[in-house]
Amino acid sequence: MAQKPSIPKGTRDFSPSEVAKRNFVIDTIRSQFQKFGFQPIETPSFENSDTLMGKYGEEGDRLIFKILNSGDYLKKADSSALKDHDSVKLTSSISEKALRYDLTVPFARYVVQHQSEIEFPFKRYQIQPVWRADRPQKGRFREFFQCDADVVGSDSLWQEVEFVQLYDAVFSQLGLNGVTIKINNRKILSGFAEVIGEQDKLIDFTVALDKLDKIGEDGVKKEMLEKGISSEALNNIQPIFSLKGSFEHKIEVLNKILENSEIGQKGIQELKFVNKAISNMPLKTAILDLDVTLARGLNYYTGAIFEVSSPEGVKMGSIGGGGRYDDLTGIFGLKNMSGVGISFGLDRIYLVMEELDLFPQTVTANTKVMFINFGQNEALYALKAVKELREAGISAELYPDDAKMKKQMNYANRRDIPFVILAGEEEIEKKLYGFKNMKTGDQEKVSIDKLKELLT
Amino acid sequence: MAQKPSIPKGTRDFSPSEVAKRNFVIDTIRSQFQKFGFQPIETPSFENSDTLMGKYGEEGDRLIFKILNSGDYLKKADSSALKDHDSVKLTSSISEKALRYDLTVPFARYVVQHQSEIEFPFKRYQIQPVWRADRPQKGRFREFFQCDADVVGSDSLWQEVEFVQLYDAVFSQLGLNGVTIKINNRKILSGFAEVIGEQDKLIDFTVALDKLDKIGEDGVKKEMLEKGISSEALNNIQPIFSLKGSFEHKIEVLNKILENSEIGQKGIQELKFVNKAISNMPLKTAILDLDVTLARGLNYYTGAIFEVSSPEGVKMGSIGGGGRYDDLTGIFGLKNMSGVGISFGLDRIYLVMEELDLFPQTVTANTKVMFINFGQNEALYALKAVKELREAGISAELYPDDAKMKKQMNYANRRDIPFVILAGEEEIEKKLYGFKNMKTGDQEKVSIDKLKELLT
Repeated sequence: MAQKPSIPKGTRDFSPSEVAKRNFVIDTIRSQFQKFGFQPIETPSFENSDTLMGKYGEEGDRLIFKILNSGDYLKKADSSALKDHDSVKLTSSISEKALRYDLTVPFARYVVQHQSEIEFPFKRYQIQPVWRADRPQKGRFREFFQCDADVVGSDSLWQEVEFVQLYDAVFSQLGLNGVTIKINNRKILSGFAEVIGEQDKLIDFTVALDKLDKIGEDGVKKEMLEKGISSEALNNIQPIFSLKGSFEHKIEVLNKILENSEIGQKGIQELKFVNKAISNMPLKTAILDLDVTLARGLNYYTGAIFEVSSPEGVKMGSIGGGGRYDDLTGIFGLKNMSGVGISFGLDRIYLVMEELDLFPQTVTANTKVMFINFGQNEALYALKAVKELREAGISAELYPDDAKMKKQMNYANRRDIPFVILAGEEEIEKKLYGFKNMKTGDQEKVSIDKLKELLT
Repeated sequence: MAQKPSIPKGTRDFSPSEVAKRNFVIDTIRSQFQKFGFQPIETPSFENSDTLMGKYGEEGDRLIFKILNSGDYLKKADSSALKDHDSVKLTSSISEKALRYDLTVPFARYVVQHQSEIEFPFKRYQIQPVWRADRPQKGRFREFFQCDADVVGSDSLWQEVEFVQLYDAVFSQLGLNGVTIKINNRKILSGFAEVIGEQDKLIDFTVALDKLDKIGEDGVKKEMLEKGISSEALNNIQPIFSLKGSFEHKIEVLNKILENSEIGQKGIQELKFVNKAISNMPLKTAILDLDVTLARGLNYYTGAIFEVSSPEGVKMGSIGGGGRYDDLTGIFGLKNMSGVGISFGLDRIYLVMEELDLFPQTVTANTKVMFINFGQNEALYALKAVKELREAGISAELYPDDAKMKKQMNYANRRDIPFVILAGEEEIEKKLYGFKNMKTGDQEKVSIDKLKELLT
């Protein structure tokens, strides 16, 4: 009664080479997080449902994976919901836990729960999987890793500066050069709405503006007009539809448009602060650009908004994003905790690096050298050398069975193991090892010390 | 309506220092796995329910966390089960996925599903969390990591030898010296049952024998007699209740007892093979010991059985275990795939290392140096140095706000940051940095190059 094995849709198995490459990206991000003074925390995979529910909107609530209570869960089930076959109503009575949907809400929960142990400002990073019952599609999975760094407890703009540097440091170290770090500020968007006298239409306005890339100036304007924004209003901000040139030039243009908006001016000051600091400490390979169309979860962000796009020529959505929020922990009872944070999109970064062939050859989980097994005595002789090599940090193995030579060589070949050792009676007597380069086919007899040298 | 935040029982938040220590253990295990030629795979956190259900016995089935189907899950619900309030029967109709319970069954599923891509023998390791709806208690959690290494596709005994070496390598590298690697063999246990003519009572016999440590010889014998094993039978194996001395001596004793048991003799040969190889390649710090009472999931293991116990004086159950199994993948339709594997108990290893104070001081996720923030110009001067230090691999940060000096120093103090930099107008003019050792209170003015030197 064998089952045909499969995995749930939207999930993935990772092969050894995929794990090695993913870990290369994760380790790079982690090491930069550490250098920037962020400290790691980890939270449970599932939270109490009431920690998560209601935090991501109605759509989010639906996409949260709920865990069925253990034991006789129907005992406590809402009987009227059962009778009415009302799934939505029944859920909370048969499921108390849910898989985390992102790392932000668990982080907020963590901060409030552990506030007495935490020194603020608290710089934390967190690299863990999250789960969403989204419809799977290319590049979108039901289980995926998030890599987040946040600071809470300070509204200093130096943090925005550091996050720009952090993006640059990570992508430069990955060899992913030429990414664009787009920055905007919620206050600029509020300023626009103010100067055109449409504060109440801020959301409609920014949702439309966010599409400039996709539907062009005419499309955006059409949508804005449909939403009841007057064409006169649009005239007042005409320059933003074709804002080009240097960061400084864009600031100048904005300065004119937002001349009479206090909040808009505040946004300009903040953007100038970040840009000036970065000019004083030039980025290694990334480009910092002002993009006034950038909105991302607008209701959430209150200051800076970040988004990172792949190097030109690579078609991939954003590979990172973030921004400043003013009240992360309020939902859990801790008020006035300003924060700012960014996230790295592991799966997309992986895809971009694959596309550009950026993973170093050395990124592999593979064995470096395999010893051929010629029988019991030879195997012991081999395993003694294997032990020494491992102690010298070299990944080494002995073929476990004294199978036919050809079978063993084929195995090494198909596994792409670069070096093979042949040591039979003759070599044992002379305390030597037949060292074979599987690529060139070259073969020589060497001592154990020479072997170590050749393999490190 | 603030919620009082909490996490589900049996789960844990990990603080920065806990994450750092856990990663130290995990990274050590991982690096040895790699050196021994094991390759990493990762599988999804949840599997299709039918992949997991029925693989761990009735008790296991109950402890598996089930995930509620998304959307209107009651639509497809078993209506008679609903009517009868039959939780057990209802489950499969409203839940198609479940959180993995261990790494072994997902590994078996992986091997069968990907058999065409895999070269056998396949040496894989896997370090991922698993979930069990067990009653939480000290040292037992509902979410915990497993660290497994297995080889499938070969029945060579050299693998048993290598697993003993692997345990030794990991525990030695962790500084956890003096652990005992206990080894037994299912064939020895079968041999006992054979020579006392109680093959049909093998399970009862080994379950009782496994308790020798806890209930003593009299207790074990009492239980065996109660299970219907004759006292005459027990006389035939009397020596195993007080088996002491060297590995070789124990083998001698067993040899006599199992003189007439073919399977018992096979077990002895296997144990001798492993012991001889290890004698030829002495372990670094671990002790290999033969323990004929060791059974572990007997029905599962077919050859070697391993268990690792903490150094003497530390009260902690096993910190690792494993063994050989003959038919891992049969349940998924791939027959005759012999395998052998071991597991490391991360949580317990962590606790033992804490108890023995074995974590190196350097295992910390903490920032090494913090720059005091004296205002905008000073902060920029500081951040330039911070950037250089980070590029030199040093974890450095700037206090984000130009708060009162005392507040900033207190912050560094409470966070245990070992060094603080003070650089005001005077230092900026001279291109120097006031370097303060927070432990000794010593302070000196140094150049950026000297600073790097002092911090690496």
